[in-house]
Amino acid sequence: MTQHFSTRTAASQHREARARPVDPAGPRRGLGVGELVLDGGFWGALQETNARATLGHCLDWMEELGWLGNFDRVAEDATGGERPGWQFSDSEVYKLLEAMAWEFGRTGDPAVDELLGKVVDRVAAAQDDDGYLNTCFGHTGQPGRYSDLSTGHELYCTGHLLQAAVARVRTVGSAGGEDGLVEVARRAADHVCREFGADGRDGICGHPEIELGLAELGRALGEPRYTEQARLFVERRGHGTLAPIALLSPAYFQDDVPVRDADVWRGHAVRALYLAAGAVDVAVDTHDDDLRAAVERQWTRSVERRTYLTGGMGSRHQDEGFGDDWELPPDRAYCETCAGVASVMVSWRLLLATGEARYADLIERTLYNVVATSPRADGRAFFYANPLQQREPGADVRPDAVNPRAEGGVRAPWFDVSCCPTNVARTVASWQAYAAMVEEAPDGGVVVTLAQYAAGDLRVVLDDPSTGRRGGELALRVTTDYPHDGRIQVEVVDVPERPVRLRMRVPHWADGATLTTPDGAVRGVEPGWADAGAAETGAAETGTALAAGDVVSLDLPVGPRLTWPDPRVDAVRGTAAVERGPLVLALESVDLPAGVALDRVRIDPGVAPRALADGAVVRARTVPLPGDGTGTPPFASGPGPRGGTGADDSTSAELDLPLVPYHRWAERGPSTMRVFVPTTSREETR
Amino acid sequence: MTQHFSTRTAASQHREARARPVDPAGPRRGLGVGELVLDGGFWGALQETNARATLGHCLDWMEELGWLGNFDRVAEDATGGERPGWQFSDSEVYKLLEAMAWEFGRTGDPAVDELLGKVVDRVAAAQDDDGYLNTCFGHTGQPGRYSDLSTGHELYCTGHLLQAAVARVRTVGSAGGEDGLVEVARRAADHVCREFGADGRDGICGHPEIELGLAELGRALGEPRYTEQARLFVERRGHGTLAPIALLSPAYFQDDVPVRDADVWRGHAVRALYLAAGAVDVAVDTHDDDLRAAVERQWTRSVERRTYLTGGMGSRHQDEGFGDDWELPPDRAYCETCAGVASVMVSWRLLLATGEARYADLIERTLYNVVATSPRADGRAFFYANPLQQREPGADVRPDAVNPRAEGGVRAPWFDVSCCPTNVARTVASWQAYAAMVEEAPDGGVVVTLAQYAAGDLRVVLDDPSTGRRGGELALRVTTDYPHDGRIQVEVVDVPERPVRLRMRVPHWADGATLTTPDGAVRGVEPGWADAGAAETGAAETGTALAAGDVVSLDLPVGPRLTWPDPRVDAVRGTAAVERGPLVLALESVDLPAGVALDRVRIDPGVAPRALADGAVVRARTVPLPGDGTGTPPFASGPGPRGGTGADDSTSAELDLPLVPYHRWAERGPSTMRVFVPTTSREETR
Repeated sequence: MTQHFSTRTAASQHREARARPVDPAGPRRGLGVGELVLDGGFWGALQETNARATLGHCLDWMEELGWLGNFDRVAEDATGGERPGWQFSDSEVYKLLEAMAWEFGRTGDPAVDELLGKVVDRVAAAQDDDGYLNTCFGHTGQPGRYSDLSTGHELYCTGHLLQAAVARVRTVGSAGGEDGLVEVARRAADHVCREFGADGRDGICGHPEIELGLAELGRALGEPRYTEQARLFVERRGHGTLAPIALLSPAYFQDDVPVRDADVWRGHAVRALYLAAGAVDVAVDTHDDDLRAAVERQWTRSVERRTYLTGGMGSRHQDEGFGDDWELPPDRAYCETCAGVASVMVSWRLLLATGEARYADLIERTLYNVVATSPRADGRAFFYANPLQQREPGADVRPDAVNPRAEGGVRAPWFDVSCCPTNVARTVASWQAYAAMVEEAPDGGVVVTLAQYAAGDLRVVLDDPSTGRRGGELALRVTTDYPHDGRIQVEVVDVPERPVRLRMRVPHWADGATLTTPDGAVRGVEPGWADAGAAETGAAETGTALAAGDVVSLDLPVGPRLTWPDPRVDAVRGTAAVERGPLVLALESVDLPAGVALDRVRIDPGVAPRALADGAVVRARTVPLPGDGTGTPPFASGPGPRGGTGADDSTSAELDLPLVPYHRWAERGPSTMRVFVPTTSREETR
Repeated sequence: MTQHFSTRTAASQHREARARPVDPAGPRRGLGVGELVLDGGFWGALQETNARATLGHCLDWMEELGWLGNFDRVAEDATGGERPGWQFSDSEVYKLLEAMAWEFGRTGDPAVDELLGKVVDRVAAAQDDDGYLNTCFGHTGQPGRYSDLSTGHELYCTGHLLQAAVARVRTVGSAGGEDGLVEVARRAADHVCREFGADGRDGICGHPEIELGLAELGRALGEPRYTEQARLFVERRGHGTLAPIALLSPAYFQDDVPVRDADVWRGHAVRALYLAAGAVDVAVDTHDDDLRAAVERQWTRSVERRTYLTGGMGSRHQDEGFGDDWELPPDRAYCETCAGVASVMVSWRLLLATGEARYADLIERTLYNVVATSPRADGRAFFYANPLQQREPGADVRPDAVNPRAEGGVRAPWFDVSCCPTNVARTVASWQAYAAMVEEAPDGGVVVTLAQYAAGDLRVVLDDPSTGRRGGELALRVTTDYPHDGRIQVEVVDVPERPVRLRMRVPHWADGATLTTPDGAVRGVEPGWADAGAAETGAAETGTALAAGDVVSLDLPVGPRLTWPDPRVDAVRGTAAVERGPLVLALESVDLPAGVALDRVRIDPGVAPRALADGAVVRARTVPLPGDGTGTPPFASGPGPRGGTGADDSTSAELDLPLVPYHRWAERGPSTMRVFVPTTSREETR
């Protein structure tokens, strides 16, 4: 594969040139990707790999498979033959454009901008005069426009085009519409509004995404028609108007219950989550508290009952969907990478809308354990599904070919349905957006909240609401080796005239966290938000909290800890997992002594796990297993449980076993793996 | 729905008229459906309902939906418009014909025979001159013959046609070919041999079944060409020649590994099992011990590691397929009814081929807990999937309409893919075939083995191998209330001149079973086969074992017992099930006291379950559950397991709970259900 991009351009040079991030409506804004320059670390390294390998990898595959060529064929009126790719392949091109836009925003690398422009030119050439843009419908030899709303994915593709344009607006600005990508998106959005407006076609798309794209673009360009169109799409959903897909119920595409009436996410996970994200945007921008509360309610029940320890969502392969409450099988966890991306999008919107720390907690959990799990270390292969248990070593992935969903414990370079690689690319490239938020406080001051942690330089451009003009900059230097180490040190480099307070997230698992304030005082902080400014000034309402030279340190306990399932999660009864800070750990068969099968391992919960690099070491014992040869299903009548209690010393042994971060499993050859490991019975630990 | 059939015709009158069952090649033959007349009981009642309701129910639905009309349209050259039904809908008509053939064989009811004839006439009219018969391919406006072997199901449909004809041969005889159905099948089989013979098209069907149909018909009609064609299809499979189906691997239709090389069943369960059944037929008839051993090996591993307590097979909804070893989730168990039917077909063939009792054990387990679970008590609604846990009360089944797969805990009258109702019908109608087998012993005598138990009159026509002629009849009267009661009493009514010994199956779970021999002596018998003749005569090799007037009784312990999973079955760790004789029991929410959720129930394994009608009563306690409102996934760090240990008396209570037979769950309104119930911890039971 070609290396298309370098990251040599100094981000600091570019930073001065970048436009302001566009604020979401509401009291808080997220960070512009140029406002934080990472200094290596976990996410810095992933961003390097993403820029160096993944973007080009995706582009090469789509060129080779003809998914980019589809645009050329439309432009040249050469459609009608066999068209490469699924009906939604355009969306992959748009997600890659979005990733490139963020990447250019992050680094200012002109090579990225140039390549983005070339792809945009090909896309633009395929746009019809009236703004319609799709390579699968509406041209010579193709089905008619919007002839199959249930499965055609036309509006879904358009939604991703609009999101790519939003990334462009947020990184290079385009109020005047001078950017090619933004102009294409504006014309496409206008077309959708004409076609599906209040007086137009009363339809929705089988795969939500257009809601999100329209709402975000409407906000970015200050175009209320787009927001209104997004609102129409949200409200039209849930009335059973989509033509059914064989064997799937209307819940598959959330057409069973209106968004504002639903209590929980159900059906296809990515669809449910893209829809929820769009609904939050609409709710915030139209001040629809009822709709916002509905999504918050759905988030709460779905997270508390239908979400994996990794943050992964989607318990079923059959419909790539949510299961029932408490249905969280580790082996058949679907946890599609894209659902992780979509979940981050939803939680980020709710975080900005509500300011509640739980949303940032889930973002962190999901970024480390789903999004970061998908790409191989070299950025050129990906997991599609992210199960929490691998029963048989992966073998059936073709390392150099298009694959079905990668379920077999081996990452694959590309997929038949290849939604995940480009989704990883756009999310990793825009990690900074989730890292902090800026909020006007009622006292006239500003609160800057660090929601995610990484070493780097933060330079936040503040407004002055009294004048509407630039209100100076807050510059912070964050020093940390998080998540390997729990100390996050923040040095105040520069402060504006307006009083600024600092808040730092204390994750829900961080019992015993402490905050060291500039005066050197150390105090315990409860999970949620630790308000350094309030501690410093004694009262949140008054005064300037931060001064240049101040140093604030948050210490989070990132040592390994045992984690237990709710007893209603039947699939992992009698097991425990090990976590280490935000990282879920995994026991991989390649780390077992020769001759010990993963099936025979029991963790001893009476011995605290020890830290080991980014992993941990647990005390375990092996137990005997029943023999084969019964000629019956694997169940037997008797007075008590079968085998596995380890009473027989001849086959039972005590041993220390290393666990690795889940996000890095399956990188040392085919293996079996467990996140949840059975525990020894309490008798054994006495 | 119309009641098409009565069962008033006295079976005994008809019995004299029925033809001999056609023996399979090999040392043992199964029973002809006319050789055993049931005296009510579990299976007698199901057969009554099947005859009275199910056969007509299926016919009415297929008439109404146009699946029967498809044959008329082909006959009238009126194809080309929209064709009702899936491409495999012809097979449902054939399975119903098979059910009718068995039903007529069982009772001799002329109304069944007449109706069968009418359907056969419509089918026959659609047959092309060269024997090709399919309503979806090969006619005006349809895709060409065999243009889509992967998903077209043409040979699959033909296979079911041949099986229907085999039922006809085995019940009314047709050596001269005078039966319409047999004649149609013979022409269809000849066509397949011409088209796909050694010099013909080198293809196989995406859905195995033709192998089975050809092999059985070849045996029934003494036509080795059909057996040879079946052999060709078996050998051609497993070389990856079928065009792939999107997102499914070649293992889906067993085209990944040749049958004789495979170690375990994998992919779509019904396909895997139909193929295995056909392979056994081929192996027996061609004396291919290697092939037979391969299927025995696959049976062993698949039963010991990939089979549910109910005998159900298929752990995955996604591909209706087997999972990995030990992957047996109770809630997402697919356990398709048709896979249960197919499993019985495989085990029956291996039983006749090997004489091993384990095959009869699995047949019994599967008949009671899968096949009998599917139909509603009135025979007019069915389960398609048979999960072992229902998390939410079923609600989304339309009681009077075509449904997708019934997964929601409510039986449905008909399905979009409606393979299960007709499969239940043909299996229930032919239950007698599995009840006993007749075997020539090396000593020149005959061994009659009772493999399944039900009250009734058995009249077995014996050959005399020395003359090749009829060798007299063995008449036994079986008196039992099995499975409600464990005593099976066999009275010898009439014996032939040839010495006959009796064997009765002792199920693997029947620890403590006893046999009472004609002299009144009682002795313990080990699970396997209890040889009453050997006990009576002192040596199996000599003498006449049975004499008219002899009474032999087998007493099986059918009281309730706790059953524990192999520790490798992760999905049900920490639980136990309750069985009662061959019946798996279930705890249904409708049997819980008000205010007690199924999630809170723990069985106390220290108290033996008590018998109750066909169910049991268990000692249980309720436990408190963690509260909601954490805003995180349902897992929490801490020193030990979360909640559910029942230490708090204010929320924990001891109670006795009734369990019902699994096959009768979901007949008292929407409910939640568990076969595997968590147990109290050992501390609690002390």
